[in-house]
Amino acid sequence: MLTMQEALARLTAYWTEQGCLIVQPMNTEVGAGTLNPATFLRVLGPEPWRVVYVEPSVRPDDSRYGENPNRLQTHTQLQVILKPDPGNPQELYLGSLAALGIDVAAHDVRFVEDNWASPALGAWGLGWEVWLDGLEITQFTYFQQAGGLNLDPVSVEITYGIERIIMALQEKQHFKEIEYAPGVSYGEVFGQAEYEMSRYYLDDADIEANRRLLELYAGEAQRMIDAGLPVPAHSYVLKCSQAFNVLDSRGAVSTAERAAEFARMRRLAGEVAKLWVARRSELEHPLGLVTALDPARPPAAAQTGDQPRTLVFEIGAEELPPAELRNAREQVLRLVTEGLAGTRLEHGEIRVFGTPRRLIAVVQAVAAREDDHIRTVKGPKVQAPEKAIEGFARGQGVSREDLETEEINGVPHLVLRKHEPGRAAPQVLADVLAKVVGGLRSAKNMRWNDPKLAFSRPLRWLTALWGDDVVPVAVSTLAAGRQTRLLRTAVPPVAEIASAETFLETLGVNGIVADHEDRRELIVVGAQDLVYPDGRIDVRGEAALIDQITDLVEQPLPLLGTFDEGYLTLPDAVLTTVMRKHQRYLPVRDEDGKLLPMFVTVANGPVDVDLVRTGNEAVLRARYEDARFFYRADLDTPLADMKAKLDRLTFTDKLGSMADRAGRIGALATLLGERLGLGSAALDRAAELVKFDLGSQLVTEMTSLAGVMAKDYALHAGESRAVAEAVFEAELPRNTGDALPRTIPGALLSLGDRLDLVAGLAATVGLPTGSSDPFAVRRAVLGLLALHRSTPEFAALSLVDALALATQPVPVSGEVLAAIGEFLAKRLEQALTEEGHPVDRVRAVLPHFARPSVADTLLAQLAVAVEDEAFAAVAAAIQRARRIVPDGTTASYDVAVLKEPAELALHDAVTAVRAGLDGSADLPRFVAVTGQLVAPVNTFFDDVLVMADDPAIRAARLGLLAAVRDLGDGLLDWPQLRL
Amino acid sequence: MLTMQEALARLTAYWTEQGCLIVQPMNTEVGAGTLNPATFLRVLGPEPWRVVYVEPSVRPDDSRYGENPNRLQTHTQLQVILKPDPGNPQELYLGSLAALGIDVAAHDVRFVEDNWASPALGAWGLGWEVWLDGLEITQFTYFQQAGGLNLDPVSVEITYGIERIIMALQEKQHFKEIEYAPGVSYGEVFGQAEYEMSRYYLDDADIEANRRLLELYAGEAQRMIDAGLPVPAHSYVLKCSQAFNVLDSRGAVSTAERAAEFARMRRLAGEVAKLWVARRSELEHPLGLVTALDPARPPAAAQTGDQPRTLVFEIGAEELPPAELRNAREQVLRLVTEGLAGTRLEHGEIRVFGTPRRLIAVVQAVAAREDDHIRTVKGPKVQAPEKAIEGFARGQGVSREDLETEEINGVPHLVLRKHEPGRAAPQVLADVLAKVVGGLRSAKNMRWNDPKLAFSRPLRWLTALWGDDVVPVAVSTLAAGRQTRLLRTAVPPVAEIASAETFLETLGVNGIVADHEDRRELIVVGAQDLVYPDGRIDVRGEAALIDQITDLVEQPLPLLGTFDEGYLTLPDAVLTTVMRKHQRYLPVRDEDGKLLPMFVTVANGPVDVDLVRTGNEAVLRARYEDARFFYRADLDTPLADMKAKLDRLTFTDKLGSMADRAGRIGALATLLGERLGLGSAALDRAAELVKFDLGSQLVTEMTSLAGVMAKDYALHAGESRAVAEAVFEAELPRNTGDALPRTIPGALLSLGDRLDLVAGLAATVGLPTGSSDPFAVRRAVLGLLALHRSTPEFAALSLVDALALATQPVPVSGEVLAAIGEFLAKRLEQALTEEGHPVDRVRAVLPHFARPSVADTLLAQLAVAVEDEAFAAVAAAIQRARRIVPDGTTASYDVAVLKEPAELALHDAVTAVRAGLDGSADLPRFVAVTGQLVAPVNTFFDDVLVMADDPAIRAARLGLLAAVRDLGDGLLDWPQLRL
Repeated sequence: MLTMQEALARLTAYWTEQGCLIVQPMNTEVGAGTLNPATFLRVLGPEPWRVVYVEPSVRPDDSRYGENPNRLQTHTQLQVILKPDPGNPQELYLGSLAALGIDVAAHDVRFVEDNWASPALGAWGLGWEVWLDGLEITQFTYFQQAGGLNLDPVSVEITYGIERIIMALQEKQHFKEIEYAPGVSYGEVFGQAEYEMSRYYLDDADIEANRRLLELYAGEAQRMIDAGLPVPAHSYVLKCSQAFNVLDSRGAVSTAERAAEFARMRRLAGEVAKLWVARRSELEHPLGLVTALDPARPPAAAQTGDQPRTLVFEIGAEELPPAELRNAREQVLRLVTEGLAGTRLEHGEIRVFGTPRRLIAVVQAVAAREDDHIRTVKGPKVQAPEKAIEGFARGQGVSREDLETEEINGVPHLVLRKHEPGRAAPQVLADVLAKVVGGLRSAKNMRWNDPKLAFSRPLRWLTALWGDDVVPVAVSTLAAGRQTRLLRTAVPPVAEIASAETFLETLGVNGIVADHEDRRELIVVGAQDLVYPDGRIDVRGEAALIDQITDLVEQPLPLLGTFDEGYLTLPDAVLTTVMRKHQRYLPVRDEDGKLLPMFVTVANGPVDVDLVRTGNEAVLRARYEDARFFYRADLDTPLADMKAKLDRLTFTDKLGSMADRAGRIGALATLLGERLGLGSAALDRAAELVKFDLGSQLVTEMTSLAGVMAKDYALHAGESRAVAEAVFEAELPRNTGDALPRTIPGALLSLGDRLDLVAGLAATVGLPTGSSDPFAVRRAVLGLLALHRSTPEFAALSLVDALALATQPVPVSGEVLAAIGEFLAKRLEQALTEEGHPVDRVRAVLPHFARPSVADTLLAQLAVAVEDEAFAAVAAAIQRARRIVPDGTTASYDVAVLKEPAELALHDAVTAVRAGLDGSADLPRFVAVTGQLVAPVNTFFDDVLVMADDPAIRAARLGLLAAVRDLGDGLLDWPQLRL
Repeated sequence: MLTMQEALARLTAYWTEQGCLIVQPMNTEVGAGTLNPATFLRVLGPEPWRVVYVEPSVRPDDSRYGENPNRLQTHTQLQVILKPDPGNPQELYLGSLAALGIDVAAHDVRFVEDNWASPALGAWGLGWEVWLDGLEITQFTYFQQAGGLNLDPVSVEITYGIERIIMALQEKQHFKEIEYAPGVSYGEVFGQAEYEMSRYYLDDADIEANRRLLELYAGEAQRMIDAGLPVPAHSYVLKCSQAFNVLDSRGAVSTAERAAEFARMRRLAGEVAKLWVARRSELEHPLGLVTALDPARPPAAAQTGDQPRTLVFEIGAEELPPAELRNAREQVLRLVTEGLAGTRLEHGEIRVFGTPRRLIAVVQAVAAREDDHIRTVKGPKVQAPEKAIEGFARGQGVSREDLETEEINGVPHLVLRKHEPGRAAPQVLADVLAKVVGGLRSAKNMRWNDPKLAFSRPLRWLTALWGDDVVPVAVSTLAAGRQTRLLRTAVPPVAEIASAETFLETLGVNGIVADHEDRRELIVVGAQDLVYPDGRIDVRGEAALIDQITDLVEQPLPLLGTFDEGYLTLPDAVLTTVMRKHQRYLPVRDEDGKLLPMFVTVANGPVDVDLVRTGNEAVLRARYEDARFFYRADLDTPLADMKAKLDRLTFTDKLGSMADRAGRIGALATLLGERLGLGSAALDRAAELVKFDLGSQLVTEMTSLAGVMAKDYALHAGESRAVAEAVFEAELPRNTGDALPRTIPGALLSLGDRLDLVAGLAATVGLPTGSSDPFAVRRAVLGLLALHRSTPEFAALSLVDALALATQPVPVSGEVLAAIGEFLAKRLEQALTEEGHPVDRVRAVLPHFARPSVADTLLAQLAVAVEDEAFAAVAAAIQRARRIVPDGTTASYDVAVLKEPAELALHDAVTAVRAGLDGSADLPRFVAVTGQLVAPVNTFFDDVLVMADDPAIRAARLGLLAAVRDLGDGLLDWPQLRL
C-alpha cells in the first residue's frame, strides 16, 4: 500500500524531474500553499520559476476535533508552480498521477471548472478542480493576478489535497486511518494535534489577544513595507491572515470587520507585491527572464482538386466551462459566418459543435476558389491630356490600348477593367479562420503561455482541413495541421485526419461525440436505461443539470451508483443539494417522486466502470456521512439552543449580532401583521424562531439550506406546520426566480428580514454603489418588491412606511429613507422594464414604487387602456392642458371670472370629475369618470383663447386647465407616457 | 554534483529506510529542529518514535545580510530522532554520510564532545559535534531531559547542518554559491530573503511591538496550559522564543530580562511537557511502549590451562570526552585493583590504557585459580552438651569426628576446619570485572538504551580474556566476548582476539594506539617532523591542547595544513583562538615565536591525506575570512563609534546600558586614581575608552577576545601604548589563573570594573547564593582580591571604602556594603586557605579582608613569627591576659588604685608600648615594641592576685590586663591563632 509519506516523496521526485526545485513549507501558519512566498512572490515578475513543496495548510474554520472523517484544521497540500505555463501542464499533471500508481485510463479523471480568487490577496486565476471518480483531489489554476498585479508570464498552480488522494487510494473512510508511514496511521501521528488545535481554534483562543496580535502584525507589515522590505512584510501579512482566521473561527468577526480586514490585507498584499517586483528589478532579475514563444509559421499552402469540399476547423482547448462552451459555440458560428460573408467563397451550411476540449466548425461545400472578378479602375477623363492618360496606363502596367471608355457621372472616362482571378480556398480560409481564433472571447478571459491570445481557457491546437488539404492557418503561436487530439487516455492520444469529410467520423470512431444534442441524448437515454424499471430521472426538472453534464464530457458514459438506504432519512434537499451542486449527480426517484438510494454520474470516456462507480460512491458516502453527522447533532439540539448560538454570530459592528437582527425581524413582522390585520399565533411563534437554523451545524456547512433546515428542524421539534412553513418562507426569495412565500406569516417575516437589512445597512454603511454589494442589498430590495407584488394582502402597505418602522440600533434619518425610496424606485423600474413593459409606461406608474403591486395593476390596466380610444382621448385632453399651462401654475381659479360657455362647461365637468374620483389607483375607473372631460376640453380649446389680454381672465383660464392637468396626479406620471 | 535538494532527498530516503517517518517543518519560526513538536514532545514518554524532517532554523542573531559566507539567519537543519537508542546510532549515521556519497574512510570523520543544553527548554543531552575534516557538520545528542523531565527511553537526536555539508561537498566558499537545484544557486533562491530578514532582525523590527507579541504569546501559552492543551501551548512557547530572539538580535534584552524570560520559557516548557506526558498516558500511548532490552547472558565459562595468564579487559564506548577519558582510566585502575584485592587471585602488574573508544585494563600473570583456603568454623564449647555438639556437626554436614579443638578467647571450643578450593580465574574475574563496568561514573552521566548503566557516553561492548579464555562477564545488556571493534572504517570493523597476550598487538596491527603516552609521542614527533625545518610547535605552551588532541584519536595521523599568508595580518590572539579553541589545530611558529601560515591537525586513522588537508584548510579559511571581515570592519570604525554601540547593549534593567556601566567604571577608576595619587593622562583617556571593543564586530563574535581587541584597535587608532595597555588590562583577570594588570591605569580600571559590578548587582539582584551566579559576581570578587594583592600601590586602599565610592543608579545601602564585606572576607579566607596557609593564621589576618595585600603581608610575617620565641612570648602574654579578662571588660583602669610594684611595672610597660605602637600592620614591629611586656606580664601574674576582694582593685587589675589584651587589636584576630 502506498503510504502518505511515500506519496509525497513520489510526487516531489516526479516534479523535480520536471525541473521543479524543492522548498520547505512556510514557517508561519498559512491557509494554503499559495501563500508561501515561493508562490505568492515568485509568480510576480518576469523571472522563470518551477517549484514543488509540501504545505501543511491551516484552516481554523475546518476544525472538527479530529472527529469529522474528511475535515481537518491542518491538511496537507502539495503545491507545484510552473512559470511560465509549459504548454502541456495538464499532461504533466496526469503524469504525476501515474507516478502515484493511479491508472488514469481506468479512472474517471476530470477537469471541472473552478475559478479561484482570493480577495485578501488581490489574486485570481482560472482553472479547474480535478476530480478522480468524483472526488476533488487537486486545484489547477492559471494564475492571472496576484497582489493586484497582472501576471506576465502566467504561472500554472497545481495544488494536491493529499489526505483526500490517499484516503481514496487506500480506501479509508476516515483520515485518521490513513497509513501515513509503514505501520503508522495518520491518526497516531497527528490525531492529538487535530483535537487540541481544534479546541484552540473553536473554543479556547483568546479573542482579545488575537485581536491585538492582528493589530501588531498589521503594524509590522506596514512598517516593513515602509522600509522597502517585501519579504518580512509578506510574512507579517500571513500572520495577519492567521490571526484573522482564528478570530473568525471563534465567531468574533462581523461582516463589516471581515470586509475591512480583507481590504487591509489586500492593500498590504498589493504593496508587498509591488515592492517585490521593484526589488527583483533592482536586482536585475537574478533568475533571468522568461522569453515569449515565437509566432507559429503557417503550414505550407497546398491545394489539390477544384471541386467544392467540406471545411472543418477545430479549435482545441483545455476543458472549457459549460457556460463558456455554449457561448463559444455561438461565437464561432457568428465569426465563421461573418468571416465567410466577407469573402467571395461559395459555401453551404455552416454548423458548429463543441465539447469541453474542442470547438468545431463544419462548412459544407466550400468552393475551391473564389469566383473570378472584374474590377474597374477609373482613369483620367477621355479629354485629359494624352500625357496623363499614358501616365495612368504606365502606372497600371498596361498599354494605352488596354484602356476602355466608360461614362462616370455623365463624363466619359478612360478605365481599365482588371480581370482578377479568385483566390484559392485554403488561402481565403486561412485568413477567415485566424480571425475566428483571435476574435474568441469569454465572460472572464485568461492568459496562458501565448503572448497574444486570451480566452476562457488555453487554446492548445488547431485542426483545419479543406477537403484533403490543410488550411494554412496560423494565429500567434498556433498553427493548424491535420492532427487532432483524442481523449487524453487514448492510445495514441492523437489522430491524423485524412480529409475534412472524415473528421467527425474519425472523432466518432474514437468515441468523441462532438454534438451537444447527441451527447445529451446518450446521457438521458443511458441514465433512464440504468435506472429502469424502478427509477426515473426527472429529465425536465433536471434539465439545467443535464445540460451542464453534457458539456462536461466528450464521450459520455452514464454510470449507476447507489448509496446506503439509511441516508434517505436525511431531508431531500440535503441529499439533492449534495448530488446536484457538489457532485453533478442525477438524483433518481420512484414513480411517486420519492428519492431512491441511487444516482447517475456520467464518466468521460472508457473507464473501469466498477472502479469509477466505487470511487463515486465513496465520495457521496463521505459527503452524506458528513451531513448526517451534522443533521443528527442538530436534531439533538433544542431550537432555542440553536437560536442562542446566533448571539455569537456578528451581523455587523453597528447592527449587532445575528440574534439582534433576528429579534428585529420578528418584531417588525409582528408589528406589520398587526397593522395590516394579518397577525396570528403562528406568526408570533415563527417570529420567535426566525433564523434559528443559522445556529445549526448543517446550515453552517451548507448555507444554501438556510430556511429549508429551519422547516425540517421545526417540524421535528413539534412546531406546527404553519410555523415551520413560516420560518422556511422567511428566507424566500433566496435568489432571482426563487419561489416566494405563500403564507402570510412567511411573507411578513420575509418582508421583515429584508426591510431590516436595507434600513440598517443604508443607515450605517450606505446603499451599494458600483459593483461592491457584500451584503446583497440589491437582492434584498428586489425581494421586497417581489414580495409586495406577489402578496395581495400587502397592497395597502407602503414599503417606505414599512421601512420607517424597521427600527435599528442606529438612527435612520429621513434622508436615508428618501435614498432608499429612490433606490427602490430604480430597482422597480429595472425589474418592470426587464419583464418587457414599455419603458414609458413603467415610468408612468413609478410614483407607486412604494406599493409595487399597485404599479403592477396600473401597468396591466395601461396595457389594456392604450388600445382604448376613451383612454387615449382622456390622456390627450390632459396632455393638451398640460402643454399650455406654464410650470408652477396651481389648479385654482376664480370661477366668477369665467363667462364663456365653454369655460363654464369645462368648469362644471372638472367639478363633476373631482367629485367622482376617489383617489384609487384604478385606471378604468379614472377613464370612466374623466371621460366626460374630453368634449368640454376640446370645445374649450376650440372656442376660447386661453391667453386672454385680461390678466385675471388669463389666470382663471390657466387655473382651470391646471385643474384638468392635475386630475390624474397620483395615478400616473402622465408626461412619461408616449401615446 | 550533488545538489542541496538532492542531498535532502537522499538523507530523507536513507532515514526512511531506517524506519523513520517524515514530518514537515514546524509552521511557526523555530531556532532549531529540536523545537519542532516531533522532537520536543515526542521524546517524552514511553512511546517509540523515529522521525526525519527538514527544519529551516531561524536565528535572528546570525543575521548578516547574506554577506557573511557561512552565517545565515535561516539555515537548513535535517533532524533525525531515534527513540529508543537503536544501539548503533553512530554506525547508522555514518551510513547516512555514505548515502550522500561521502567516503567516510577517506575523510576524517570525528565525534567531538559537545554537550547540549537548552535552559529555556529545561532540556539537555550529551553527545558530539561530528566533524568532517575539521568542519562541524552534525550535532549528535543523546537526549536526557526535556521540559525538565527525565527521558526514559532516551532518544538519539541527529541534526545535520545542511548548508555546511553541501558547501564542503561542492567546494563552495559562500553559501550563496551552493548549487541548490540543477542550475539554480542557493543565493538565487534565498539570497533576497536573507538580506531582508537580516534587515528586519538587526535594524527594523519594532522593539515595542515584539515585546507586546512576547507577552501575548506567553499569555496564550499559559491559558492553553491551564486548558490542558499541550500542543497549542507548545506552539505559543515557540512563538515566545522567536519574539525573544528578535528582541535579542535588536539588542533590546538585558541580562536580567534574559534570565527572567528563560525562566518563564523553562517553566512553560516544563508544564507543556508534563501535560503532554499526561495526555499520552490518558490516550493509553497510541504508539505502544518501548520494551527495555533483556539482560545479556554471560558467555559459557571455560578454562584451559592452569598457568598464570594475562588478563585483558576492554570496555568499548562511544567517543569519550578527553577529560572524562583521563578520569575513567583512573577509575578503571582503582576499580580493578580494589576488585582483585578483594579476591584471592594472584596477579602481576595492572596497567590501564584508554582511547576515545575504549578503556583497557591489562593485568599480568593472573593465576589460574585462587589459592585453596582453610576456613575455621567456630562450634560449641568443648564442655557443651553432646546434643549441641552433634547438632553443630550435623548442621555442617560432617560427623562428630571431623571436629577439632581450638582455644578461643581462652576457652576451648570445637571447630570445623573447612578446606575451600580456590575458584577458577574466569569465574573470579567475571565478578570483579562486572563491578568495574557497573562502578564507572563520570562528572556528567547519561543514559542510553541500557536499562541500568550510566556513564559519560554509551558503553557498547566488552572484551574480556584470561589467556585464551573468554571471561564470562555480563553486565546489564552487555556480555563479554573475544571480539573487539577496530576503527569504524576498518574492513572488517571487528577483530577476533586469540588470547589476552596478543590483544594489544592485535589493536596495534590494526593501527590503534592504546597508550596515551604513545599517541602523544606520535603526535608531537609527527607534528615537529611536518613543520621541520622552518617551523616549531611550542610543545610546552600547547601541552594542554596536545593532551586533548591525544585523547581525541585512536590512531593519530598528524597533517600539515597551510593558510593564506594574508591572514597573518590578523592579531595573533585571533588566529590562535580560532586554531586552538574552535579547531584544535596546533599553531606553528618560527624560531622567533612568530606565527607561520600553517597548522597541524591530527586525523584519526588512515585517511586520504590530501582530501582531509584540503577540507581542514577550507574550514580554517572560512573562519579566518569571517574574522577578517569583522576585523576590517572594526578597523574602519572610529573607536567612538564602537563605544557608541554600547548604548544599545543593555547591562541590566536597573543598572542601565553597557555605556552607562563603562562610564561608571571610568569615573570610578579616575576617582580612585586621584585619591591614591595615581592619576595620569593615560588613565583619563583609557577611562573614556574602556570596554569600547564590546561594540566591535569581532568581539561580538568572539567574546573571549574582549580587551585583547581593545588594545589592538586602540593602537591602530593612534592611541598611546599606555592607553592601549590599560584598556586591555581593564579586562584582567578574565578567569582564575589569568594574568593581572601590570600598569596602574590598567589596574585602576580593572578595579573600577569589578567594584561597579559587585556594588550594582549586590544592590539590585543581590549577591550570588547557591550555584546560580549568572553575572559571575564571585569571579569579580576574586578579581578584586587578586588585584589588591598584586598591586602594591593599592595597599592603603580599603576595598570596602572603594565600594562605597562605586555610585550606582540605585542606592547602595550600608547593609549592602556590609554584606559585600562579609562576602569579600569569605572569598579571601577561601583563597588564602586554598593557597596553603594554615586556616588559623588565615582567620587571624582576616580582619584585613578589605586590604588583602595587608593580609598577605601579615600572613608572611606570621609564617616567620611562628618560629620566633619573641612572638611566641608576646602572643602568650596577650593570650594569658585575654583568658582571665571577662568579655566586655574595657581597657580602662584607675591608675591611682594600683599599688603593687608588679601592677605599676605592667602599667608602665603598657604605657610605653602604647606610645611605641603606630597602628601599622607590621608584625615584627609589633613584636619588637611589645616585647617589653612579656616580663611585666609574667611578673604580674606571679605576684598579683587579679581577683582581689576589693572590687575597685579587681576592676583596676582587670582593666590593666584588658589593656594588654587590646594592644594587638586591629593587627590580628588573636583568638583564631593556634600557637
